[in-house]
Amino acid sequence: MMIIMRTDATPPQIETVVKRVEEFGLRAHLSQGEERTIIGAIGDRRPVNMDHFLHLPGVDRVVPISRPYKLASREFSPLNSAFLLDGVMIGADPVVLIAGPCSVESRSQLLETAFAVREAGAHALRGGAFKPRTSPYSFQGLGEEALELLAEAHQATGLPIVTEVMSPEQVPIVARYADVLQVGARNMQNYTLLNAIGQSQNTVLLKRGMMATVEELLMAAEYILAHGNRRVILCERGIRTFETATRNTTDINAIPVLKSLTHLPVILDPSHSTGHWEYVTAIARAGIAAGADGLIVEVHQNPEEARSDGAQSLKPERFVQLVTQVQAVAIAIGRSLAPAPARKDVVDI
Amino acid sequence: MMIIMRTDATPPQIETVVKRVEEFGLRAHLSQGEERTIIGAIGDRRPVNMDHFLHLPGVDRVVPISRPYKLASREFSPLNSAFLLDGVMIGADPVVLIAGPCSVESRSQLLETAFAVREAGAHALRGGAFKPRTSPYSFQGLGEEALELLAEAHQATGLPIVTEVMSPEQVPIVARYADVLQVGARNMQNYTLLNAIGQSQNTVLLKRGMMATVEELLMAAEYILAHGNRRVILCERGIRTFETATRNTTDINAIPVLKSLTHLPVILDPSHSTGHWEYVTAIARAGIAAGADGLIVEVHQNPEEARSDGAQSLKPERFVQLVTQVQAVAIAIGRSLAPAPARKDVVDI
Amino acid sequence: MMIIMRTDATPPQIETVVKRVEEFGLRAHLSQGEERTIIGAIGDRRPVNMDHFLHLPGVDRVVPISRPYKLASREFSPLNSAFLLDGVMIGADPVVLIAGPCSVESRSQLLETAFAVREAGAHALRGGAFKPRTSPYSFQGLGEEALELLAEAHQATGLPIVTEVMSPEQVPIVARYADVLQVGARNMQNYTLLNAIGQSQNTVLLKRGMMATVEELLMAAEYILAHGNRRVILCERGIRTFETATRNTTDINAIPVLKSLTHLPVILDPSHSTGHWEYVTAIARAGIAAGADGLIVEVHQNPEEARSDGAQSLKPERFVQLVTQVQAVAIAIGRSLAPAPARKDVVDI
Amino acid sequence: MMIIMRTDATPPQIETVVKRVEEFGLRAHLSQGEERTIIGAIGDRRPVNMDHFLHLPGVDRVVPISRPYKLASREFSPLNSAFLLDGVMIGADPVVLIAGPCSVESRSQLLETAFAVREAGAHALRGGAFKPRTSPYSFQGLGEEALELLAEAHQATGLPIVTEVMSPEQVPIVARYADVLQVGARNMQNYTLLNAIGQSQNTVLLKRGMMATVEELLMAAEYILAHGNRRVILCERGIRTFETATRNTTDINAIPVLKSLTHLPVILDPSHSTGHWEYVTAIARAGIAAGADGLIVEVHQNPEEARSDGAQSLKPERFVQLVTQVQAVAIAIGRSLAPAPARKDVVDI
Repeated sequence: MMIIMRTDATPPQIETVVKRVEEFGLRAHLSQGEERTIIGAIGDRRPVNMDHFLHLPGVDRVVPISRPYKLASREFSPLNSAFLLDGVMIGADPVVLIAGPCSVESRSQLLETAFAVREAGAHALRGGAFKPRTSPYSFQGLGEEALELLAEAHQATGLPIVTEVMSPEQVPIVARYADVLQVGARNMQNYTLLNAIGQSQNTVLLKRGMMATVEELLMAAEYILAHGNRRVILCERGIRTFETATRNTTDINAIPVLKSLTHLPVILDPSHSTGHWEYVTAIARAGIAAGADGLIVEVHQNPEEARSDGAQSLKPERFVQLVTQVQAVAIAIGRSLAPAPARKDVVDI
Repeated sequence: MMIIMRTDATPPQIETVVKRVEEFGLRAHLSQGEERTIIGAIGDRRPVNMDHFLHLPGVDRVVPISRPYKLASREFSPLNSAFLLDGVMIGADPVVLIAGPCSVESRSQLLETAFAVREAGAHALRGGAFKPRTSPYSFQGLGEEALELLAEAHQATGLPIVTEVMSPEQVPIVARYADVLQVGARNMQNYTLLNAIGQSQNTVLLKRGMMATVEELLMAAEYILAHGNRRVILCERGIRTFETATRNTTDINAIPVLKSLTHLPVILDPSHSTGHWEYVTAIARAGIAAGADGLIVEVHQNPEEARSDGAQSLKPERFVQLVTQVQAVAIAIGRSLAPAPARKDVVDI
Repeated sequence: MMIIMRTDATPPQIETVVKRVEEFGLRAHLSQGEERTIIGAIGDRRPVNMDHFLHLPGVDRVVPISRPYKLASREFSPLNSAFLLDGVMIGADPVVLIAGPCSVESRSQLLETAFAVREAGAHALRGGAFKPRTSPYSFQGLGEEALELLAEAHQATGLPIVTEVMSPEQVPIVARYADVLQVGARNMQNYTLLNAIGQSQNTVLLKRGMMATVEELLMAAEYILAHGNRRVILCERGIRTFETATRNTTDINAIPVLKSLTHLPVILDPSHSTGHWEYVTAIARAGIAAGADGLIVEVHQNPEEARSDGAQSLKPERFVQLVTQVQAVAIAIGRSLAPAPARKDVVDI
Repeated sequence: MMIIMRTDATPPQIETVVKRVEEFGLRAHLSQGEERTIIGAIGDRRPVNMDHFLHLPGVDRVVPISRPYKLASREFSPLNSAFLLDGVMIGADPVVLIAGPCSVESRSQLLETAFAVREAGAHALRGGAFKPRTSPYSFQGLGEEALELLAEAHQATGLPIVTEVMSPEQVPIVARYADVLQVGARNMQNYTLLNAIGQSQNTVLLKRGMMATVEELLMAAEYILAHGNRRVILCERGIRTFETATRNTTDINAIPVLKSLTHLPVILDPSHSTGHWEYVTAIARAGIAAGADGLIVEVHQNPEEARSDGAQSLKPERFVQLVTQVQAVAIAIGRSLAPAPARKDVVDI
């Protein structure tokens, strides 16, 4: 950390800061400019709270030098991390597509959609059992019943299951049914949840909060990694800005930025990041072109009947077009779609 | 809700929308303009998902008419709600000051600060036992030990206790020790937590998420109210914007806006909303001038030793100045400071 | 426009609004809900200020129905507009690349870069003569001398010239030298400039303000169109958000949104929208994948010597890679790169 | 400036940076940490473009140390600047109120409002002659006719005149009629306008752009100061955020932040910063409580007839209440309202 003194800081003030740096077991390195003095606090990597210096007289600002995350950083692990999800590899060169309804609404709705997205080329099935909804009066998900339906859909299609977990108590039960535990955007900084998930063995899909910086997303991942679970997939799903033409603003920059800062897989959710089905395919193409390792897309047989997020859900036939176009873009940049997971037994729907 | 058709919508498309409106048990009211048709969906107050109409051909936009919250709205309860916190009334005309350290760090730190803020004129004591921290490597709070110290501080000073609860499991234990359960900004949309708190009897201090609109804050309050707990205090604590000169941007507009939309008490946290102690007093004055029912302020005996948020904590002597100035502003706008809560027995610190 | 009354509006208040609607020569259409009344103001397309109704007692909100722009809208002109720039067509199916230095710094710098980007496949040359700089102490551009160098570069390479104009007085002189007048992001709502440009015959490259909505960008275009100049190209160049990992946030959603709302060509500036050369190529690919009609990219022979924007400028060899990759993506989505403009005479550099 | 090297930077890379620092006539100061090297570039205050270092291999980031503005900084001039406006001092302890209509619409409208705000206690009259409007189809102001009416209102009431200037050519004519040249938010970075105004002798009211940081506002002021005009008043008028409950978000923090960073007077525009007349008075009180040196408020005899900004204009009787309340708050914090300017001759309206 660099402590930047005010231009009118006195020698005793500078000395006080130096002493304080040394109290923390760090070495103080003075840099005497024409205008002001800068004090470097040099030492091991133990984090020292910058706040400790901001109240000292004569201090103007404190600038952090080291990045606050370690296990998530590319310096920690220069090679890309890749995880096997029941037969599908994510984080490797081939691109992975996760698709399915926003919420599990019924057995037939889920199975029809599951088969449809599998036929279209999806590698994993998403579907919400526990739904975080802005209104207490909105549909909150079918809960455990939905988890059972997801397990059945997994049996039927062979697709690994991605579903959201909303609180620490839900982790064991969701982990019993699902391959990937999703942490929703609103819970990105729900630290008791991150800790509980960090103690599980499941792969995690960590969605970026709608107002979280890239660095905060990496710090949230660091919580999970530091608790022992190294299987974290990051997901850009749009941030909140002043623009109201779309539900969120897709931070497409975050894709190459994250790929340069971390070894973890990075995917894009073009459904939430746009909020309108008309724009989903264009942004899905853009995400792959920007270097994303995969996509998570909302698909519904009858979006106009969906109990949540109908406006941003694709009909299966539009998802087929999305897959074709995304595949062409993947190939154009030297990647490909991942191979389909092995089929399981067919059920009667 | 009003369904706005495209300018090129055909009569059969309009008819389909009308039919669908009627399927939901609503009445369709057509408004035929020169340029386009608008269809009002009129009926009882049951919420119908706007998404159901966005996929229908010929539909341009859907505009909601009713506000999505009911119990939190001023229409539901035109008079201001006020709650008694162990002898201190909040939400009534007199202004209430909550003060104390960001985190409980030790018995002496807490008690010294508690007595100092009481002497200065505070009406309640804040102090974190469970701390949500961006980094897994930062101090996470003393947990239950801190709760016991807070209870002791309450005994010693008579000040009601405000402390944060981070997960549903913590609700019973925190409720045993504290008068007011605080929901932190990062958990404003942690719905399992809101539901658990809604089932408790404690007063709740609900902080606005740094990315939440005023309407979303009211929807989060609605979760708690709808679960049976009507004792909710709202807290503006700064929102995230592009400006980096301060930690957050105090949304001072939110004070009069909330006072006009809801009957719930509204307070301001100038410590988090600025992030720099130099600006806390000016913004505290502004909050009261704008109509806030109270303030929550971070105070620490030695901010430069604080284990969290030192940069934005006031020393006790500066808090004394804040109280004096805030009182003058309160009187200027026809309010006053609330009377001090009754003293309890003095402990040896 | 729809005027939404409060739930407690009285019949005389409703009547007053109706009368006022009629005073503006509009027809009032009442929609009586269970909860409140909504009054539609129906009539010809003359814009009526919504503010006229907000002060009337009993009025809750006013919702606009018509879009505020007309000439820029796709409803006005369903087919894509395309303009010929000295042999290069922009707005048609083939994708157009504009490249060159941020500022014109010297004859050799400009000509070397011009030849390099032409070899790499660029279709037009950008270069700043008048530079809007945040600091009055920064390099402000070579002015008219730069315009002459741009004209020479045009002679030498055949590339049409794109350069910024900062004030109404500069329009005639810049129009004499350049093919395309660029309006910078900071001047997007400089209406005297927009009016002056609207009266010229040159093609215009209108950059989105860093805090302008898509609708405001279209309204700025409407200023130019309404003054008689129909040759407007829109340019997304990143918006300002809370994220600091990149200089701006590329609003990639704006590409498909604009393509659906307007007939005007839409291009992306990945240099400004990221601010870091490392991310420019990934975001250039994403822009084309999302449907942009072209790109404008900063290229400099020695970015570390550049007098402005060096951090986001590509070296020519990296621009070669960008072109190759962008071309592959264009082909993947069924488009291509535009053919090179005809060569002119070669100069001795 | 501090150049922060990557953790894997090699000694030759560090040497290259050092050499480059020295090429700019600066001294390089190495700080060798456990993890990485930091190179301070120390020397005189000449600004060196940070971009020159970002392309060098091994460089991670560059951190500026000096503030980019000088003449505007409090270090340059520790005492508050105060200017006399035709008998009214702004920037001194007493608080100044500027009020009047958004646009000058007619002689009677202007004079009636001018007398009303003077009676209520305003010290200066605002009124738009040239109006920057989002739509080319909206009322654009009466132009020079309005300037003449403003001059007449000045004669009649003795109130100094504040009016907006939109382009360099307008500066001489507006300066002939007005005491204070206003630079609107959309033109805050219109540098040709800032330069022209910097060469005039008039006092300037510089409004913060809705997307401008506090530092950028100070840089815009620096443009004017550096061109020789030292009479600059800064005005916070709300910034653009994700919140839609109000037209803008009043950045109340900016008041104490600016007062600490600069010696220039700082005022607040609660009309634009809220956009709703219901909130104007509360936010006006907050602005004074936060330390603003004055207010600029929109007042209209018949807001529902106003040709612009009616929704945020106060009726004269409400402005009377605002003045009373603001005066009480000013006194509470140890300030007062400035004395009224001397009356001039009365005209027949």
